[in-house]
Amino acid sequence: MNLKPRVVIIGAGFAGLNAAKALKNAAVDVLMLDKNNYHTFQPLLYQVATAGLEVGDIAQQVRHIFRNQANFRFRQATVSKVDWQAKEVLLSEGEAIGFDYLIIAAGAIYNDFGIKGVYEHAFMLKSLTEAANLRSHILKQFELASSSPELIDSGILNFVIVGAGPTGVEMAGALAELFDKVLPKDYPELDLTKAKIILLEMSDRVLAPYSERTQAYTESVLRGLKVDIRFHTVVAELHKDFVEMKDGSSLPTQTLIWAAGVRAHPLAEKLGLELERAYRIKVNPDLSLPDKPYAFVIGDMAAAKNKLGDLLPQVATVAIQQGKHVGKQINRLLNQRPSESFSYFDKGSMAIIGRNAGVAELSKNLGGFHLRGFMGWLGWLFIHLIYLPGHQNKANALLEWGYNYLTYDRHVRLIAFMKSQEGNNDLEKEHKKDLVAR
Amino acid sequence: MNLKPRVVIIGAGFAGLNAAKALKNAAVDVLMLDKNNYHTFQPLLYQVATAGLEVGDIAQQVRHIFRNQANFRFRQATVSKVDWQAKEVLLSEGEAIGFDYLIIAAGAIYNDFGIKGVYEHAFMLKSLTEAANLRSHILKQFELASSSPELIDSGILNFVIVGAGPTGVEMAGALAELFDKVLPKDYPELDLTKAKIILLEMSDRVLAPYSERTQAYTESVLRGLKVDIRFHTVVAELHKDFVEMKDGSSLPTQTLIWAAGVRAHPLAEKLGLELERAYRIKVNPDLSLPDKPYAFVIGDMAAAKNKLGDLLPQVATVAIQQGKHVGKQINRLLNQRPSESFSYFDKGSMAIIGRNAGVAELSKNLGGFHLRGFMGWLGWLFIHLIYLPGHQNKANALLEWGYNYLTYDRHVRLIAFMKSQEGNNDLEKEHKKDLVAR
Repeated sequence: MNLKPRVVIIGAGFAGLNAAKALKNAAVDVLMLDKNNYHTFQPLLYQVATAGLEVGDIAQQVRHIFRNQANFRFRQATVSKVDWQAKEVLLSEGEAIGFDYLIIAAGAIYNDFGIKGVYEHAFMLKSLTEAANLRSHILKQFELASSSPELIDSGILNFVIVGAGPTGVEMAGALAELFDKVLPKDYPELDLTKAKIILLEMSDRVLAPYSERTQAYTESVLRGLKVDIRFHTVVAELHKDFVEMKDGSSLPTQTLIWAAGVRAHPLAEKLGLELERAYRIKVNPDLSLPDKPYAFVIGDMAAAKNKLGDLLPQVATVAIQQGKHVGKQINRLLNQRPSESFSYFDKGSMAIIGRNAGVAELSKNLGGFHLRGFMGWLGWLFIHLIYLPGHQNKANALLEWGYNYLTYDRHVRLIAFMKSQEGNNDLEKEHKKDLVAR
Repeated sequence: MNLKPRVVIIGAGFAGLNAAKALKNAAVDVLMLDKNNYHTFQPLLYQVATAGLEVGDIAQQVRHIFRNQANFRFRQATVSKVDWQAKEVLLSEGEAIGFDYLIIAAGAIYNDFGIKGVYEHAFMLKSLTEAANLRSHILKQFELASSSPELIDSGILNFVIVGAGPTGVEMAGALAELFDKVLPKDYPELDLTKAKIILLEMSDRVLAPYSERTQAYTESVLRGLKVDIRFHTVVAELHKDFVEMKDGSSLPTQTLIWAAGVRAHPLAEKLGLELERAYRIKVNPDLSLPDKPYAFVIGDMAAAKNKLGDLLPQVATVAIQQGKHVGKQINRLLNQRPSESFSYFDKGSMAIIGRNAGVAELSKNLGGFHLRGFMGWLGWLFIHLIYLPGHQNKANALLEWGYNYLTYDRHVRLIAFMKSQEGNNDLEKEHKKDLVAR
């Protein structure tokens, strides 16, 4: 007989993982649900997509992470609904799982902002499968160019990235290095200067939230890497072989990478809850749901705000801190103590542009230092190695990065497409169907 | 204008690779064709299937291997036919490629010996995709057992291996270690002694070509690892949830691994050539085709024989030596010298059964030593590290093996299914359809 309250956590991202860890010593049973049996280290997905890291290097089996946590259980399953009356989570498989506390942390998917063709033709970078398939697709384009060089003029080597935020910038930089240093040795028969990287941005700047000096630095590094940055450019519609802009111009491409922004996972719309911008769920200051003190939303799905009333960014550090916070609050509630408001401690942000070229801006809390170039790059490597879960993953990543750095080479260049787990996820299938039908 | 003779090589396995390398300094243009853009190190596929190594560790991009060979070109393509009259290879994509010399080295696929259900339901271990998908399937069975323990009695944790040759033995040993040392920590909620490994063998012994002492040793190690070895057992038909034997008995299982033998790639039947046992192509003593001195067959597709008239085994060492031999013969023909007969230098064979337990039998040429236990295991590691192509792959494999050895852990436990490249390969699709229809 089990009388301990059950905490169900939906999602094994940064938010869910940290919530579960914070409940390690609580008198509860924790049950985590995720459609994959692994946690994905999303900040490094672009490295998988550009042949820098292997799929397994940035993923860690959830059961392994919690091996030493006796109150933790995992199930590979997808959630289709929550029955608030019965306090049950309903799985796609039909089963219902009761909970005493619920933590909703299913993360985000890409936001197509209603632009036609994006879900059919664009490449996304939110899952391991997408990253591995983008890598395979990119390499396949070069194979195609090698066997049918006459197609190059029709744009098969045009690689378009939409959105010059951190994801778009990191992707552009990593692609540029791949094309400049690695692929020329693989494809001596091709003129690799014909492979174009085109970065489309609506606004007039890269890395919008950073300082002007960092933006100028980033732009100049990217231009040095021959990335064609086009500001004030808005995508109107995406087709199989070309992309149309709002201004009527178009660009031939078979590879458009969508880094323009995210929205909450479609589960958000199935819960009967109040939504804010980009389908993020309205939460109380302690991250619980209005009128549901036993249920919390954290990470990219939560519409949590800072003191000025602005939505917090959808980044790993927010998710990590929110996970820890909610774990702590459930501990407090179990001990009949009132919950506390969440407040985000902003440490700053960092991005990597290329070899020896990174940018890091520490927040004012931490002195407000800005690093650019080699030191920014080194800081980035250091932080990502610390946060990458698993000793073996750290060792592998260090080995790959060391090898890449010393040899100007990349080890992972297999064309090997992965099957999507979407097949198991009714909500994501339905969402995609809606988008395609629209 | 290009006046050099063109050598087309079909297949980037051990045979094709070594033939191309042996032509490095020849006055020819070498063009290699393979459906994948990588070489697969087949002897370690079972380690990918049992979560010991990552997919990328045992594959190497073909273009990378030949970076420093100026006369080498690669195309990712599949061959559907050879037009002997026009001296052209026809690609599935419709294109025709002319050749002056042709080397056929498309390898082998599993032989189902006409047993129904094998191609529909069995897992094979001849490609990276199959190995990654078998790993994912095995782990998925444990997830299933965790969420629905009542299914365990209906056989979802019965893992059946057919064939106790080196592949079957290595697979059984690696699975036993996975179940015994690694998975109990992941699945504390399951009684892992309920996961059964059943090794079915037609004859009355494991590792048929080895000495009796080695067979006895291997059998006792496997039994010590709780592998249920059943001799004199012949499969009659395979169904989705159970396997039927010739003697009328049956065994519930959703995981049957087919390690019972191989046959030549279906291309063999499309060439209008004389075939011998298991569709292997009849060759002259120099490995050229009868009446076609400019065309050679090597590796698993060739029906090459030793001095006693026995077919050579379909193993990596034969393929490597035949590749080198044929490269050398084309060099000789180019210099108007007669070709030489191939003779196989048998170094012996080795297999690994478990931790610290390997067997190696050097051939009489090399002193006839037999190693068993720790020394056999160490010898196996050493040889495989030497032959595994790529420095980065060697370093990765060493890191994984060191980690596994010291921690009794395995790093690679993602459930991540890969898409088959078969989609590109008309012959394999057709072959499969024929088998399923039969």
